[in-house]
Amino acid sequence: MPLDSKYLEILRQEEFDEEDFVSLNHLAQKVRNRILEVVSKNGGHLSSTLGAVELIIGMHCVFDNPRDPFIFDVSHQAYTHKLLTGRWDSFETLRQKGGISGFTKPSESNQDYFIAGHSSTSISLGVGVAKAFCLKGASNIPVVLIGDGAMSAGLAYEALNELGDRKYPMVIILNDNEMSIAKPIGAISKYLSQTIAGKFTQNIKNKIGNIINNMPNATYLAKRFEESIKLITPGMLFEELGLDYIGPINGHNLKEIIEALRLAKSIQKPIVVHAQTLKGKGYPIAEGHLEQWHGVSPFDRQNGIALAKNSRKSPTQIFSQTLLEIAKEDSKVVGITAAMPSGTGLDLLIKTFPERFWDVAIAEQHATTQASSLAKEGFKPFVVIYSTFLQRAFDQIIHDVGIMQMPVKFAIDRAGIVGEDGETHQGVFDIAYLNMIPHFVLFAPRDQATLESAVHFAHHFSNAPCAFRYPRKSFKLDENLFAPTPFALGKLEILRNSQSEILLLGYGNGVGRAYECLLELEKQNILCSLVDLRFVKPLDKETLLTLSKNHKKWFIFSDSAKIGGVGQILSAFAQENNLQIKIHSFEFEDDFIAHGKAEEIEEQLGLDTSHLTQQILQHI
Amino acid sequence: MPLDSKYLEILRQEEFDEEDFVSLNHLAQKVRNRILEVVSKNGGHLSSTLGAVELIIGMHCVFDNPRDPFIFDVSHQAYTHKLLTGRWDSFETLRQKGGISGFTKPSESNQDYFIAGHSSTSISLGVGVAKAFCLKGASNIPVVLIGDGAMSAGLAYEALNELGDRKYPMVIILNDNEMSIAKPIGAISKYLSQTIAGKFTQNIKNKIGNIINNMPNATYLAKRFEESIKLITPGMLFEELGLDYIGPINGHNLKEIIEALRLAKSIQKPIVVHAQTLKGKGYPIAEGHLEQWHGVSPFDRQNGIALAKNSRKSPTQIFSQTLLEIAKEDSKVVGITAAMPSGTGLDLLIKTFPERFWDVAIAEQHATTQASSLAKEGFKPFVVIYSTFLQRAFDQIIHDVGIMQMPVKFAIDRAGIVGEDGETHQGVFDIAYLNMIPHFVLFAPRDQATLESAVHFAHHFSNAPCAFRYPRKSFKLDENLFAPTPFALGKLEILRNSQSEILLLGYGNGVGRAYECLLELEKQNILCSLVDLRFVKPLDKETLLTLSKNHKKWFIFSDSAKIGGVGQILSAFAQENNLQIKIHSFEFEDDFIAHGKAEEIEEQLGLDTSHLTQQILQHI
Repeated sequence: MPLDSKYLEILRQEEFDEEDFVSLNHLAQKVRNRILEVVSKNGGHLSSTLGAVELIIGMHCVFDNPRDPFIFDVSHQAYTHKLLTGRWDSFETLRQKGGISGFTKPSESNQDYFIAGHSSTSISLGVGVAKAFCLKGASNIPVVLIGDGAMSAGLAYEALNELGDRKYPMVIILNDNEMSIAKPIGAISKYLSQTIAGKFTQNIKNKIGNIINNMPNATYLAKRFEESIKLITPGMLFEELGLDYIGPINGHNLKEIIEALRLAKSIQKPIVVHAQTLKGKGYPIAEGHLEQWHGVSPFDRQNGIALAKNSRKSPTQIFSQTLLEIAKEDSKVVGITAAMPSGTGLDLLIKTFPERFWDVAIAEQHATTQASSLAKEGFKPFVVIYSTFLQRAFDQIIHDVGIMQMPVKFAIDRAGIVGEDGETHQGVFDIAYLNMIPHFVLFAPRDQATLESAVHFAHHFSNAPCAFRYPRKSFKLDENLFAPTPFALGKLEILRNSQSEILLLGYGNGVGRAYECLLELEKQNILCSLVDLRFVKPLDKETLLTLSKNHKKWFIFSDSAKIGGVGQILSAFAQENNLQIKIHSFEFEDDFIAHGKAEEIEEQLGLDTSHLTQQILQHI
Repeated sequence: MPLDSKYLEILRQEEFDEEDFVSLNHLAQKVRNRILEVVSKNGGHLSSTLGAVELIIGMHCVFDNPRDPFIFDVSHQAYTHKLLTGRWDSFETLRQKGGISGFTKPSESNQDYFIAGHSSTSISLGVGVAKAFCLKGASNIPVVLIGDGAMSAGLAYEALNELGDRKYPMVIILNDNEMSIAKPIGAISKYLSQTIAGKFTQNIKNKIGNIINNMPNATYLAKRFEESIKLITPGMLFEELGLDYIGPINGHNLKEIIEALRLAKSIQKPIVVHAQTLKGKGYPIAEGHLEQWHGVSPFDRQNGIALAKNSRKSPTQIFSQTLLEIAKEDSKVVGITAAMPSGTGLDLLIKTFPERFWDVAIAEQHATTQASSLAKEGFKPFVVIYSTFLQRAFDQIIHDVGIMQMPVKFAIDRAGIVGEDGETHQGVFDIAYLNMIPHFVLFAPRDQATLESAVHFAHHFSNAPCAFRYPRKSFKLDENLFAPTPFALGKLEILRNSQSEILLLGYGNGVGRAYECLLELEKQNILCSLVDLRFVKPLDKETLLTLSKNHKKWFIFSDSAKIGGVGQILSAFAQENNLQIKIHSFEFEDDFIAHGKAEEIEEQLGLDTSHLTQQILQHI
């Protein structure tokens, strides 16, 4: 049912009477209902978006969007904004191919200011807008909505540091649900939850203030005292960074929200509005619950139970259980994740060995750098981060791990197409950005069983940093097809050697894709050899040279960007060694890849078996 | 003259009497003298290292290094540490090929804990050490020395955030010289310089404290008041982050330093010791001066004047002056640097247009993300960062600039071998890590005149993000050799077309190298064609295809890593297009490149003309 336009008219009013607030609360209910309706069918980010409903309605009541740009951090909490800006009906297609994105996206609406799927960019974007408005003489103001979890990343702090100094007008709404994605980590989180402000402070302030007023130098002392007492609030940290502060307010009370936002808007300085909210608000099954309701698959709205259970274990689970076994045997094994304990499977280890496995909050840089000194002290650190988020630690991998050649082990989850989260989350660059780092060892398992072998190899490998990648959800290759063998540094594995000039060369999940093509080609009586490359660095040069003697047509399968990917690495190898072979790579073309079901996206990219086979046939 | 061993013995004492302090102050003088002696000859980091002499002596007096590891942030202020740990004489070879590194380096001494040439890694490394000590049950403690400038980067904050929460014992010495490399930027810097603590606070505390003691609930109120008053110190920020705080102390007074460090050591919690120092201390010409004495070339110690003046303008100067001219004409041009205003030449623009050009402190992530929203608002932002430091913004370039396709212009200074700063500063990866980002445009000038053209091209190019790179010091190619032509998107330039199968293909500064080889080969009556590739992305495919028809041997010259570099890009192009050519690239092999004079390093890498020519002769 479409949204009654009367609600949108209320949002545009200057003033709100009691009746309006009743309507706005109805609106909040309707919004929550719509979100639950669609997310329970399509999957999506649930608890954060439910927590931010009133805040976003309040933003639309007080500010003149899009002239006042709304910048949503991570932006998965922005569903309400989408529903209020012309996407009530089309919201039905949330996260589906060609449908509404799970994040803000300017191509969808001019009221979506920026794409954001990685955390903690909003204040920095706001500073850019504020500088631009200042230069243009615009009277509008950027409005940032950021969760407390996103405050742990360095980028947010770098931006606050400049903002507090230069004082551009900006309203930063801090959506404090005390839990970010997982359990709150870090001093900032603890700090925000110390709401000692409130009544006690007010009382002591009044009492002592009265006394001071009767003293000599009363005014001066009173001012000083005012400052000192003001500081005992959750806003101290921001005030010390040079930002004004209002709060904490109840982030589900529209009157309080609108009042605070109006005040914030009027101040024309950078100001933090600290709103306390409940994750999952309005859906009792999810209310206040932690990570499991952050991003969800389709579920039954009545009982909250996921609709489809994958019967196979996910690569994440295999990784997690294997590492747990190893950690039980070897006390030198430690591990770090950045705010994704259950997403990466490290939760199991943190629970079992809380003193050896850490969630360090959204802080990929710090996760990586500390791993290097842990390695120097003789530990065997696993850094477990999604491919796309590991990009945030690129310099730390080079500068802190790489140059020192510390044997840090990077377990890269979500490599390849991740599906519904779209362009900000695809794990396609990791081969390219790690391969350029001198002496780095890069390898990949092809199926569940070799993922176990990969974890064991990483555990024992101590000469250099190494990284292995594995896909979200499941491997293409059934684990029973090829017997698992242990990884040996720089050694590929020939899975099938045929008298053929055609060589199908898979890396990681690409082996499964290659194998499916092999079966399809066999049906047409075309024989191929099949190789699992296993290591892109170091390459198994000797075996590749041998293979090049009778295999003249190489087809490369890897879930990675073509540029800097496996095909390019092998092309360079062929050039260097004067190999008379023809290489054709089925990696991803040079473009960002939008959201949709992974299978649909892969088909669109021509990566389904029938397209791949057709292309091979054209090239032979 | 070697250091008298009596000084080192004093460092090892448990207690220090007045006489010892006299000796320690002598030692400080000797250390300063030795630093000035060597740095005035070899060049190096001067003002920060002179400011930290007493702090480092104090560290050696109080802690048991290397068991208590000393972690120096950026580590260019660690010369004193090198002098006190067996490198007094060899310090003569500072920053020379095969000599003492300008940064800490474990291969030089086991008392150098880590390599660090990029800023703000120390606290994170310290957290790793602290976790390791905790697991091992070691009673030692990591000691971090970090400058106030390094506190602006997000990585430092990410580490503080975890440390303040988990409370591992660590001593963080904050060397606050109120100026970092350039003028202090950011709220943190301002904050640290507010030393309202001191006597005033003590007075008001006593006065009000007396009153409170006479009130009901006195104890409780007193405790609260104590807390509130304690907060009015420069340590508030740290205390709120959960760290203990001592300071500010005089960072040139050894008694104060030793007392504070002993207290800090005894506390067995994370603690910040805030020391105020003077940059350049003890060398009056440099004392308190800003950026120009941060890193220096050899100079006359008597008058501080640099010994060798480069008569040619540096690429940095050309860039700076060109951008200034453009900025005068076009008010939409804005620019951002991260703590390197004079290093990048942006100082000239900040001075002329302070409202349009910004130094955002050591905050490469924030510099990049804010540029993207400035671009969205219709401005033309230049982000001006050294190649090696831009690595720190890798994810922001992909996620905030790349996916949004914002026309941010990256001016990449210090591309290629930088020389004396060594492996942490070489600018060798930028082609590889930018080339993988979809739709990014990458180009490079070959000489001074085309650097001007490059800035103009970037100014007008508005379809996508772009980046151009240029070397430190000077281009190989004399600017009068080839008439400058404007850049046209994706077009290479044929500088010499000979009836030859040999094609020398240069990119950026590589064109000069290629040209020198061409001259050398001509002497031997071997004709070559010479191409300036100009764009590695997009490639000039059409012209390259044409060139491949009669040029079968391609030699690639570019100051970049081979992996992901120009040779690999062209090898992949050749594979895709079935070109029957042989490509040989003279880019850098897969290794980190140590320090030394750029020419010496290049010779060692076989990049001098005679080596290059020999190799070409071998391949034809």
